[in-house]
Amino acid sequence: MQDFSFYNPTRIEFGAGKIASLSQLVPTNAKVLVLYGGESAKRNGTLDEVKHALGDRQVQLFGGIEPNPSFETLMEAVAIVREQDIEFLLAVGGGSVIDGTKFVAAAALHQGDAWDILLTGGQHIDAALPFGSVLTLPATGSEMNKGSVITRKSLQAKLPFMSELVFPQFSILDPVKTYTLPTRQIANGVVDAFMHVIEQYLTYPADAPVQDRFAEGLLQTLTEIGPKALANPEDYQTRASLMWTATLALNGLIGAGVPQDWATHMLGHELTALHGLDHAQTLAVILPEMLRQRKQAKLGKLVQYAERVWNIHEGSDDEKAEAAIERTRDFFESVGVKTRLSDYDLGAEHIDAIIDSLTQHGMTKLGEHGDITPEHCRQILLASL
Amino acid sequence: MQDFSFYNPTRIEFGAGKIASLSQLVPTNAKVLVLYGGESAKRNGTLDEVKHALGDRQVQLFGGIEPNPSFETLMEAVAIVREQDIEFLLAVGGGSVIDGTKFVAAAALHQGDAWDILLTGGQHIDAALPFGSVLTLPATGSEMNKGSVITRKSLQAKLPFMSELVFPQFSILDPVKTYTLPTRQIANGVVDAFMHVIEQYLTYPADAPVQDRFAEGLLQTLTEIGPKALANPEDYQTRASLMWTATLALNGLIGAGVPQDWATHMLGHELTALHGLDHAQTLAVILPEMLRQRKQAKLGKLVQYAERVWNIHEGSDDEKAEAAIERTRDFFESVGVKTRLSDYDLGAEHIDAIIDSLTQHGMTKLGEHGDITPEHCRQILLASL
Repeated sequence: MQDFSFYNPTRIEFGAGKIASLSQLVPTNAKVLVLYGGESAKRNGTLDEVKHALGDRQVQLFGGIEPNPSFETLMEAVAIVREQDIEFLLAVGGGSVIDGTKFVAAAALHQGDAWDILLTGGQHIDAALPFGSVLTLPATGSEMNKGSVITRKSLQAKLPFMSELVFPQFSILDPVKTYTLPTRQIANGVVDAFMHVIEQYLTYPADAPVQDRFAEGLLQTLTEIGPKALANPEDYQTRASLMWTATLALNGLIGAGVPQDWATHMLGHELTALHGLDHAQTLAVILPEMLRQRKQAKLGKLVQYAERVWNIHEGSDDEKAEAAIERTRDFFESVGVKTRLSDYDLGAEHIDAIIDSLTQHGMTKLGEHGDITPEHCRQILLASL
Repeated sequence: MQDFSFYNPTRIEFGAGKIASLSQLVPTNAKVLVLYGGESAKRNGTLDEVKHALGDRQVQLFGGIEPNPSFETLMEAVAIVREQDIEFLLAVGGGSVIDGTKFVAAAALHQGDAWDILLTGGQHIDAALPFGSVLTLPATGSEMNKGSVITRKSLQAKLPFMSELVFPQFSILDPVKTYTLPTRQIANGVVDAFMHVIEQYLTYPADAPVQDRFAEGLLQTLTEIGPKALANPEDYQTRASLMWTATLALNGLIGAGVPQDWATHMLGHELTALHGLDHAQTLAVILPEMLRQRKQAKLGKLVQYAERVWNIHEGSDDEKAEAAIERTRDFFESVGVKTRLSDYDLGAEHIDAIIDSLTQHGMTKLGEHGDITPEHCRQILLASL
């Protein structure tokens, strides 16, 4: 096990009807800004439920936070917070709304240009408004971590920041709120969560048996419940497990004390930026060939993954690794997320531009050993056609 | 999955040499009281290391906190805190020292009789001094939870309390600090941690696949590392895994959203109170026959435990359950913790008094269904002779 620090003060309230607990969780008499995304939060009654739970508090609404939340939109919320002396923020939505709210919380109290928060990765944040979240889409883990990714449309830049000051004070996880989500969003959520675990697990053995077992437990659970979560939208227990699994996949716990990879995410971001694929789609395309490209470096963990997650015990180490890679691809396809560039109408002629973009963004030494080059990434994309 | 609330704000600093981080973790200029147990903390240099890390801060020492920390001793610390205007407490030791420090933190700011904290289970605590811990003995999980058990010798009473105000602000986990522990304490720690998991896992199926997988991961890890941790005291990685496993066994995570048992603990407390057995020894004696007594009610989980933790796949459900119970007994014996009352010179003639004591303490409806009676407990003890 490597040395680590672990800290996560977010309170979780989990269960059907838990939105009612907002009446205790949000400070009495606070002026609250409720941030949300599209119209679905209004249509499905969640916003009404939230407003009811907030009772007599002064509540303002701020809608329209996009997927890949934008600096431009969020700065409008920052202006409202300042003008109206808002004291507490409440995110109602998925990872984009929560990521956006984290930025608003920090930017509202920031002196100077708020873009600096992104340029410095959150290092110089010394205050943030308190906020909580009501999660409606299990996927990103933002509801229980300190990270956020913000896009500045005018600069075509998408940058992350992290700060302990932007942990949500609380997050309310009500599985019923996921019943009305489109199938595609649930499928993406399953792949997102799976990949968050993979990036923290499929590296090299590091004498961390507990972290390995926890990661494998999350992966096994996702393989068991993923297809069921799609087939039966109102199966409460399956949606509950999906929701809790997605939160635990990226709340810092399984990554504490172990090496981490994240190369698939970095290459995937370029596919989203240039061609608009959903984040999960990019991961499903890249991972299988990333694993094949890195098979020797990852062999120890690939064999462990094959045996413990996929119950593959026949064959040589190489055969186990190959079988596990194919099972992974099959799993993504089984939840309806396609795994080939050609499935998204992308051909070999697009690869140069993707690699150029990756290089321009400084992503030239990726992975747990920092030895994945743009040339490796080109081979991975070619194999993913 | 059942509804749940989860909250755990304790910061963990894990690794060799992490005591040095006290210089950042403890407020500058705070007047600090360092609480510890016996002379070993002095002898092995840990106290010196702590004092060095605290630098110029005003530091006082309070030693002599016993195993099963006593109200009487701790009230002496409370008096010092008040007289000297101590602002921060630092526990250096195992679960007893940390439990004791939690009580001192709450009692020092309590108006009226501090024993009321125990009589009300911590419900009326509305303030506590901030404190941290340097863990030297992996076992109880007190370093990352809000619980504490205090004994009042004059009343022969041992009572628990819980409060979110007594989470340690931080805990430093340095596996090297365990190298010099006596074998018996490490063995007890392995059994303690194992049993904490069992009490939150071996109940009935509750549609909580993640919690099950995490619990099984902790149990599997303990079965793998337990004997190694005893055989090779200076094997850093094994001691590191033991330390992190014991913390995760009782930090609230695996118990969130699932039924819990704790009958073995309740019956075990009577054996400690009347006959002075180590806490872990009582658990090792009681658990096997508790499981046999409750075999039908627990069959679903017993079979799952047999298959996933002990890799038992042959035979009927009953045979799998029986085999798993015997493997559990063998595991306790393999780390040197005896599993029969007769190993501790206790015979059938002692059982009446134990059952009387259990009944007097109101422990008449134990277990996850509240249906384990004193008569069941008598049968369990008879079978454990």
